[in-house]
Amino acid sequence: MNFLEERILKDGVVKEGNVLKVDSFLNHQMDIELFDQMGEEFKRRFEGKNINKILTIEASGIGIACVVARHFGVPVVFAKKSKSINIDGDMYIAEVESFTHKTKNQVIVSKKFLNEDDHVLLIDDFLANGCALQGMISIVEQAGGTVEGIGIAIEKGFQIGGQVIRNLGYHLESLAIVDGMNAEDGSVEFRVYDEDK
Amino acid sequence: MNFLEERILKDGVVKEGNVLKVDSFLNHQMDIELFDQMGEEFKRRFEGKNINKILTIEASGIGIACVVARHFGVPVVFAKKSKSINIDGDMYIAEVESFTHKTKNQVIVSKKFLNEDDHVLLIDDFLANGCALQGMISIVEQAGGTVEGIGIAIEKGFQIGGQVIRNLGYHLESLAIVDGMNAEDGSVEFRVYDEDK
Repeated sequence: MNFLEERILKDGVVKEGNVLKVDSFLNHQMDIELFDQMGEEFKRRFEGKNINKILTIEASGIGIACVVARHFGVPVVFAKKSKSINIDGDMYIAEVESFTHKTKNQVIVSKKFLNEDDHVLLIDDFLANGCALQGMISIVEQAGGTVEGIGIAIEKGFQIGGQVIRNLGYHLESLAIVDGMNAEDGSVEFRVYDEDK
Repeated sequence: MNFLEERILKDGVVKEGNVLKVDSFLNHQMDIELFDQMGEEFKRRFEGKNINKILTIEASGIGIACVVARHFGVPVVFAKKSKSINIDGDMYIAEVESFTHKTKNQVIVSKKFLNEDDHVLLIDDFLANGCALQGMISIVEQAGGTVEGIGIAIEKGFQIGGQVIRNLGYHLESLAIVDGMNAEDGSVEFRVYDEDK
């Protein structure tokens, strides 16, 4: 079990409806030392990749991305979310539809900050159905850049997002993959890899 | 002239209507090395203060706050903005009205993450009329905590926010105070202190 899985067991709270609350250390209150460890671990997992920029999405991805970026020595760009159509000239816009909520959202990045020379690491806190992530991938593609890798803190392995992204051939690294949880006893089941056995 | 003022002159863009665009390094694309320098400088300016938590507000405050927090060795909490009334139990809620836009917004923090033992440094990217900052101060007050200081990247010195906050007795440190700008020639005028003369 790694440091993030241990922290989820210690401070995460399982709620009805497959909700995992990690707001005491990940996405409302933020443990910067933990983010630093995550940065070190992503740096190890994406060793040898030519990464010159990190792309994340507001709001809860930003903190992780900025602390992780120190380990790569690169700037961070954060995508904005919007419900309205925004015709402010030079923006990349991805329309993404939420599988869960059936709502349409836009993911927006200024064209000034992504182009065909960019080798991008995508960072986010959660991956479930992958709606936000698909929008970010679409934007890097629009810019003609390269998605060198995708680093996620917590992946809900029982939802489809991670599988889709891996099937598409992207190098996706999730620090904790939750395969199941139980709100009655508060237990969390993590995916186990051969190396852990 | 300090490192942030120099960077504003180099990469900031002045637009009509007293708009200063710093989205290439501060609030859309983010220069993490610059944020690190800001962290060092805030640590120096708030030397001797007993700070155990940083509070910021989504979205563009989060990146700065997280990198600054490393210099203080403390966690970050980010306040959420909402237009709608949110009755999710245990939240501190500040109603703030924008002087400019005449819109009402809520600033929200879970009660779990602020209490009377907290000595808080508030961090944000911009201070103009101070609407968001007033909301954050109100929330720390509601929690019974102490505002030990306020660290801002860029203050618009020709708007009222900074003066109000200083009049109220808070220790406010802005790394760059813009007293005027001119969209025609792109010039920016910074406040000069005796020590700089």
